[in-house]
Amino acid sequence: MEIWYAEIINIGNEILTGRTINTNASHIARRLTSLGYTVRRITVVRDEIEEIVSAFREAINRRPRIIISTGGLGPTYDDKTNEGLAKALNIELELNEIAYKMLLEKYSKLNIEITEERKKMAIMPKGSIPVENNAGVAPGILIVYQGITILATPGVPKEMEDVLENFIKKYLKDRPSVKYLETSFLLEGVMESTIAPYVKQLVKKYDLYIKTHPKGQELSKPILEIQIAGSSENEAEIKERIQKALEELKEIGVKLGGTIIQS
Amino acid sequence: MEIWYAEIINIGNEILTGRTINTNASHIARRLTSLGYTVRRITVVRDEIEEIVSAFREAINRRPRIIISTGGLGPTYDDKTNEGLAKALNIELELNEIAYKMLLEKYSKLNIEITEERKKMAIMPKGSIPVENNAGVAPGILIVYQGITILATPGVPKEMEDVLENFIKKYLKDRPSVKYLETSFLLEGVMESTIAPYVKQLVKKYDLYIKTHPKGQELSKPILEIQIAGSSENEAEIKERIQKALEELKEIGVKLGGTIIQS
Repeated sequence: MEIWYAEIINIGNEILTGRTINTNASHIARRLTSLGYTVRRITVVRDEIEEIVSAFREAINRRPRIIISTGGLGPTYDDKTNEGLAKALNIELELNEIAYKMLLEKYSKLNIEITEERKKMAIMPKGSIPVENNAGVAPGILIVYQGITILATPGVPKEMEDVLENFIKKYLKDRPSVKYLETSFLLEGVMESTIAPYVKQLVKKYDLYIKTHPKGQELSKPILEIQIAGSSENEAEIKERIQKALEELKEIGVKLGGTIIQS
Repeated sequence: MEIWYAEIINIGNEILTGRTINTNASHIARRLTSLGYTVRRITVVRDEIEEIVSAFREAINRRPRIIISTGGLGPTYDDKTNEGLAKALNIELELNEIAYKMLLEKYSKLNIEITEERKKMAIMPKGSIPVENNAGVAPGILIVYQGITILATPGVPKEMEDVLENFIKKYLKDRPSVKYLETSFLLEGVMESTIAPYVKQLVKKYDLYIKTHPKGQELSKPILEIQIAGSSENEAEIKERIQKALEELKEIGVKLGGTIIQS
């Protein structure tokens, strides 16, 4: 089974000062995972050209199938993703005519003139496809580089989500054929360190990803959320495999003195 | 003014599948920023030795003052941070006697035997200092490498916070002398693209970080949260500088037809 790797790059000082919680990364990660991708890395960098260039170049060097970035597409001085991306790819920037038309339409409807700051949102690396943003102004930037699909989305969550969905619907033709499924249950009264050796065995036995997430207190009141996940090209097969592991884990949990409090 | 860079590494598949929102990163970022550090990068990698090694090595190569990681310190098969960190630093692992004592005390109180899985939480790179975890079992791992302070904390948020605070209180003697301050206000009725050129000027004029965060709808109902932040070794000086920029920005906002709805 071939793994389709993905990477996420979030651009924005507000994430690095802790002012903004990076929900964009988790949204994109969930969406890509549901499509069968394996997100290998999330990188957050500041609104600086050289930081953006490094983040894209390093991601490209790891050869994922897809890279999705957020942030830095707006009209302000610190929106530098188009420039950073162009430099990372060594491709010139140009005024993208289709993107410019998108902006003109949006602004002219409201009788607002196009200033340099607004025009900037249509400046993209040569060969880019602007992706519709129905929740805001700045279009996404889609470009395929050395076989890697790169999509830059805005940083405002609802705009990022809109651009991402438009991209998936309209442009993402080539997708992984694997199906990703996951399930979980809550086990009370068993310490993570007690069930750990059993989990290790089952991971090998079923070739699944099993993770215990401690929710209570390891020593005084252990509660574990036990997650079982896996991918396969055959949906029925992975469903059955997860189900079997789930049943065996629940049995083990009960044998170890635990109670299943939610399944 | 010397910049003290920091980096954050979060280890855990649950972040990369989007299952868990990375609040650990924002907590640490906020805390480090409040101490005067500049967080330069956040990197999220999977629970795989080679991924952990790469993340630490790449961060070290960027020569920050401090690197804080979360996750992978627990008793389960997929907790691999101690091993990854040791490999990244090319330092052998050993049973840390102080950490082992911490574990023994916690478990013996409850008459729980120490298994291999539990003992694993005391295995650290040679020369590490275990940092107390009063919210759970696994101690943090503190090690200074080539002048870079590296702290590995657990992934459970309350344990991470506890280890982080214990580290700051007890071990973080050498700190940046700069003071970081920030303020913000809400402006309604001015588009981000309209105020953008003024913001750009003020950033230069005051040498501050000013960022407009769109909260409404750029075209139909623009609301901007305008953030002004800066650092200085002189607290009074930075306070005054931010105050001046704030007043000038509010004036500009009103001149452009906006209303200050929250300050």
